[in-house]
Amino acid sequence: MIIVMKPDATREDVDQVLARLESIGSEAHVSVGQTHTVIGVIGDRDRIQQLPWEALSGVERAVPVLKPFKFVSRDFRDKDTVIEVRRARIGGGSFAVVAGPCAVESRDQLFRVAEAVQQAGAHILRGDAFKPRTSPYAFQGLGEKGLELLAEARDEFDMPFVAEVLDPRDVELVSSYADILRVGTRNMANFTLLTEVGKQSRPVQLKRGFTATVEEWLNAAEYIYKEGNHEIIMVERGIRTFETSTRNTLDISAVPVVKGLSHLPVLVDPSHSAGHRHLVAPLSRAAIAVGADGFMVDVHHAPDTALVDGAQALLPSEFAALMDEIRSLAAAMNLQI
Amino acid sequence: MIIVMKPDATREDVDQVLARLESIGSEAHVSVGQTHTVIGVIGDRDRIQQLPWEALSGVERAVPVLKPFKFVSRDFRDKDTVIEVRRARIGGGSFAVVAGPCAVESRDQLFRVAEAVQQAGAHILRGDAFKPRTSPYAFQGLGEKGLELLAEARDEFDMPFVAEVLDPRDVELVSSYADILRVGTRNMANFTLLTEVGKQSRPVQLKRGFTATVEEWLNAAEYIYKEGNHEIIMVERGIRTFETSTRNTLDISAVPVVKGLSHLPVLVDPSHSAGHRHLVAPLSRAAIAVGADGFMVDVHHAPDTALVDGAQALLPSEFAALMDEIRSLAAAMNLQI
Amino acid sequence: MIIVMKPDATREDVDQVLARLESIGSEAHVSVGQTHTVIGVIGDRDRIQQLPWEALSGVERAVPVLKPFKFVSRDFRDKDTVIEVRRARIGGGSFAVVAGPCAVESRDQLFRVAEAVQQAGAHILRGDAFKPRTSPYAFQGLGEKGLELLAEARDEFDMPFVAEVLDPRDVELVSSYADILRVGTRNMANFTLLTEVGKQSRPVQLKRGFTATVEEWLNAAEYIYKEGNHEIIMVERGIRTFETSTRNTLDISAVPVVKGLSHLPVLVDPSHSAGHRHLVAPLSRAAIAVGADGFMVDVHHAPDTALVDGAQALLPSEFAALMDEIRSLAAAMNLQI
Amino acid sequence: MIIVMKPDATREDVDQVLARLESIGSEAHVSVGQTHTVIGVIGDRDRIQQLPWEALSGVERAVPVLKPFKFVSRDFRDKDTVIEVRRARIGGGSFAVVAGPCAVESRDQLFRVAEAVQQAGAHILRGDAFKPRTSPYAFQGLGEKGLELLAEARDEFDMPFVAEVLDPRDVELVSSYADILRVGTRNMANFTLLTEVGKQSRPVQLKRGFTATVEEWLNAAEYIYKEGNHEIIMVERGIRTFETSTRNTLDISAVPVVKGLSHLPVLVDPSHSAGHRHLVAPLSRAAIAVGADGFMVDVHHAPDTALVDGAQALLPSEFAALMDEIRSLAAAMNLQI
Repeated sequence: MIIVMKPDATREDVDQVLARLESIGSEAHVSVGQTHTVIGVIGDRDRIQQLPWEALSGVERAVPVLKPFKFVSRDFRDKDTVIEVRRARIGGGSFAVVAGPCAVESRDQLFRVAEAVQQAGAHILRGDAFKPRTSPYAFQGLGEKGLELLAEARDEFDMPFVAEVLDPRDVELVSSYADILRVGTRNMANFTLLTEVGKQSRPVQLKRGFTATVEEWLNAAEYIYKEGNHEIIMVERGIRTFETSTRNTLDISAVPVVKGLSHLPVLVDPSHSAGHRHLVAPLSRAAIAVGADGFMVDVHHAPDTALVDGAQALLPSEFAALMDEIRSLAAAMNLQI
Repeated sequence: MIIVMKPDATREDVDQVLARLESIGSEAHVSVGQTHTVIGVIGDRDRIQQLPWEALSGVERAVPVLKPFKFVSRDFRDKDTVIEVRRARIGGGSFAVVAGPCAVESRDQLFRVAEAVQQAGAHILRGDAFKPRTSPYAFQGLGEKGLELLAEARDEFDMPFVAEVLDPRDVELVSSYADILRVGTRNMANFTLLTEVGKQSRPVQLKRGFTATVEEWLNAAEYIYKEGNHEIIMVERGIRTFETSTRNTLDISAVPVVKGLSHLPVLVDPSHSAGHRHLVAPLSRAAIAVGADGFMVDVHHAPDTALVDGAQALLPSEFAALMDEIRSLAAAMNLQI
Repeated sequence: MIIVMKPDATREDVDQVLARLESIGSEAHVSVGQTHTVIGVIGDRDRIQQLPWEALSGVERAVPVLKPFKFVSRDFRDKDTVIEVRRARIGGGSFAVVAGPCAVESRDQLFRVAEAVQQAGAHILRGDAFKPRTSPYAFQGLGEKGLELLAEARDEFDMPFVAEVLDPRDVELVSSYADILRVGTRNMANFTLLTEVGKQSRPVQLKRGFTATVEEWLNAAEYIYKEGNHEIIMVERGIRTFETSTRNTLDISAVPVVKGLSHLPVLVDPSHSAGHRHLVAPLSRAAIAVGADGFMVDVHHAPDTALVDGAQALLPSEFAALMDEIRSLAAAMNLQI
Repeated sequence: MIIVMKPDATREDVDQVLARLESIGSEAHVSVGQTHTVIGVIGDRDRIQQLPWEALSGVERAVPVLKPFKFVSRDFRDKDTVIEVRRARIGGGSFAVVAGPCAVESRDQLFRVAEAVQQAGAHILRGDAFKPRTSPYAFQGLGEKGLELLAEARDEFDMPFVAEVLDPRDVELVSSYADILRVGTRNMANFTLLTEVGKQSRPVQLKRGFTATVEEWLNAAEYIYKEGNHEIIMVERGIRTFETSTRNTLDISAVPVVKGLSHLPVLVDPSHSAGHRHLVAPLSRAAIAVGADGFMVDVHHAPDTALVDGAQALLPSEFAALMDEIRSLAAAMNLQI
């Protein structure tokens, strides 16, 4: 931590800061400049970061030197985390493809799509039984019935599946069916939910809040990790900006940024960031080229009848064509697919 | 709903859209322009809005004419909602002042601050027992013990109090103590929590998500309203932008925007948007002048020892000075305070 | 400047930084923490800030302690700048009202509006002869003819006028007519234009770029100031965010932020930030209450025939009603108006 | 254009809109819904778009159906624009690599870097003689001397070069040396500059304003195109968002969005969007995979002595390694390089 004092800070102000630092056992280095005095602080990170430095008289600002997260950082663990779920593998030079319908609508719909994506080469099935919807009047998902159908599809097509969990009270239920849990973008900062999924023994996909900084996203992962669940898959899905030609702005740079700061694998969700079908293939190609560990796309056999997000779902034939492109790029990038 | 077809849409594309409209009992008006065909749609709003129009072949975009929320809109109820809690009154020409510590830390801290804000003229006490924190290593609140202290302070100083609820499992507990519930900014889109507070018979403060549009914020209020709880207080608390000199950017325009679209009262939280003590008074004055129904500020008798957000808390003396300024402005604005 | 080294920085990396600092005559204080080494730098601000510290091997980041601007800061001049133009006064406890049509369209239009705003109590006339338009097919202004009309209106109604200048080649021309020059939001970072207006002996209104941070805005003012023109009026006019219910988001907090950092006066432009007529009065009230030195609003006697921005222009009668509200608030705020 | 009337609009309001439409020779289709009346408008786009529809009494909003730009749209010209400059080719299945120093600092610096990038396979040399700098105290470029050095390097290494022009008064000067002109991000909405470069017979790189929507960026291109200069190269370089781990957020989706809307080629500038050297290679790979027509990167033989943006410049060896990766991806993508 570096504490920058105001130009008009008094000697007493500086002494008060030093006394607070001493009281928590920290060491301080004072540099007196022409206009500002700067105090470098060394000591226990947590104790230092929790005190309200900027509330002290004479303090202009406190600049943290260390990141607020620990366990998910590369400083804590340098080696890439690799997650294996049945035959699927995420991280460590494998490129994982997650595909399926946005929401489970019926047995017929799910099985058609699951069969198509499995044949085209997807590794993990997606499909949600609980949907968070901006409008209370929109379709909210099939609930447990949806999970049952997903479990049936898993067995039929031999693919693990991932499903979103919205409510801390549903975590056990979803865990009892799904191979991978997902915390969605609207719940990235739902700390009670993060704590609950942190207690499960299932890998967790953690979508970036569409308004979260990379640092906040890694803090959310830290909430899960510290409860004991270390199998966390970060999913970049676009952030909210002023641009309106896409639903959100895919922050492709976040992939190398997170992989630089953390040992966790990172997927990209081009479907939900773009919101338009014709952008899904180019963004999926960008994802593999930028160094992501996989991507997750919506596929629907009849998007114009989809109950959720049909405008962004690929047709099975479009998904198969995308997989061909991805295989060429994976070869050029020396990735397993 | 207006459906704009692509320039290269075929006759079949148009017919398919018309067939879908007919199947849900809607009426369509087709205008054929030089480059685009446009279809005006009349019929049941919910059925129309739930179909994936942009997924249909040949459709360029679908432009909703109606807002997605109903009960919270002025179209549904033109008269301002006024909320009364004990002797406090929010809306309808009264200006409500909510003040207190950000988090309850101890009996001594809470009582000192509560006494000070009551004497200076605040109407409602704030103080949280459950705190959502970005870092899992930060102080998370006193829990039920904090609620007990707040209830004690309410009785001692004869002011109703508002407290945040984070977890759907805690809603009944917080309701059993607090006079007003609060859904915080990070939970504005936590639809399971919204549904639970919607079932209570306590007024609810609904903070704007720091990344939410006004329309999404009103949709969140709709989630609460449709469960039967009609006493909703909207709280503008700043949105996330590129500007870094303030913690968030207070969207002061949102006050007249919401009051134009909805009958619900709107408060402003200058403390959490600004993040700096010296901005709280000017922003509070702006709040009353712009037409808000009140504001909510953090006060702490010793901000430099606060466990949460000390840098933005006013001292009791600063709060008293602010109240004097506010009373002058209230007189100029013909508001009760 | 504080230089934070990476956790894996070597002794050689630190020595290289120190050697660079020594070469520019700066003093360095080295603090060795558990994970990071931090170097506090003291010396000539400009020489330090211009070197590419973050490009040096082993450097994680360089944190400036000083602001990059000098002359416009309160550290350079503590006393508020007050600008007087004919009988109008901006800053120093006077509240200045600038009003008029967005663009000059005709003699009749200009004179009608000028008469109305003068009678209602405006101090300065606005009206543009050169308009920057997003689309090349939109009305671009009357050019010099417009300036002639403005000068005529000034004499007729005894009010100084402000007009925008878009092109460095037009600066002398506009200066030869206008009492106050304006650099518009799209040109805030047009450094050649800033330099030219800096050479004039006319006050300059500097609108905030709709995407500029407060620090960049003050840097732009510095460009003008250092050329010798010290009469700069900052105009907050909203920033671009994700919110779409207003044209831009008025950053009302920027008023006290700039007034804390700088001695320059600050106006608010509610018309161009809101983009909707019914928001202009509430935002104007917020401007005076937050501590701005004035505001600038669009007025048009027939907004539905305006060639530019009619949707946000007040009618003369609405402007007169607003002035009544503002006078009450000015009294409550102890401001001259 | 679609005009949506307010729920409380009167018959007279509707008639007034229809009268205005008739006066400009437009045809109107009126649809009367349960709450809103909607008017579909057919006629001359420019005349319709220039009228202030939202200023008319009873109008809620006006929704344009057509894009505001014409000549740069795919509707105007479906075939991709291909630009050839000496032996370099941009668009039409060729992938163009632009590389060189951010700013020309000296003959030695420029020639070292130019030789390195030419040998590694770059097609076009970059290097600026005029630099727009946020701070007036930063290095502003060598001016004409820099252009002379660039022209010398062009001849020595047989590569065309691109250089930024900042001031409408310098357009002829820069054109007399450079093969390609560049309008930088801060000048994207400097309409006088756009008009001047539109009169030249040199291709123009048009960087996206870091705060501009895709539509505004294409409008800026329209300014150039309509003056007669049809050789425009769009350069995506990141937009301003709340994320701080990168200098700007590269909007990778903008590449397929622009290529869908327009026939102009699109390059990506990963250096200026990321601001950090280690992100340049991953983002360059993403650029080729997403379908860009090339990229532009900063290279410097000694970034730690660079006068501008050293933190993001690649070393010549890093650039050569990147070119190897890019060649593999180009092969997988069937692009010429």
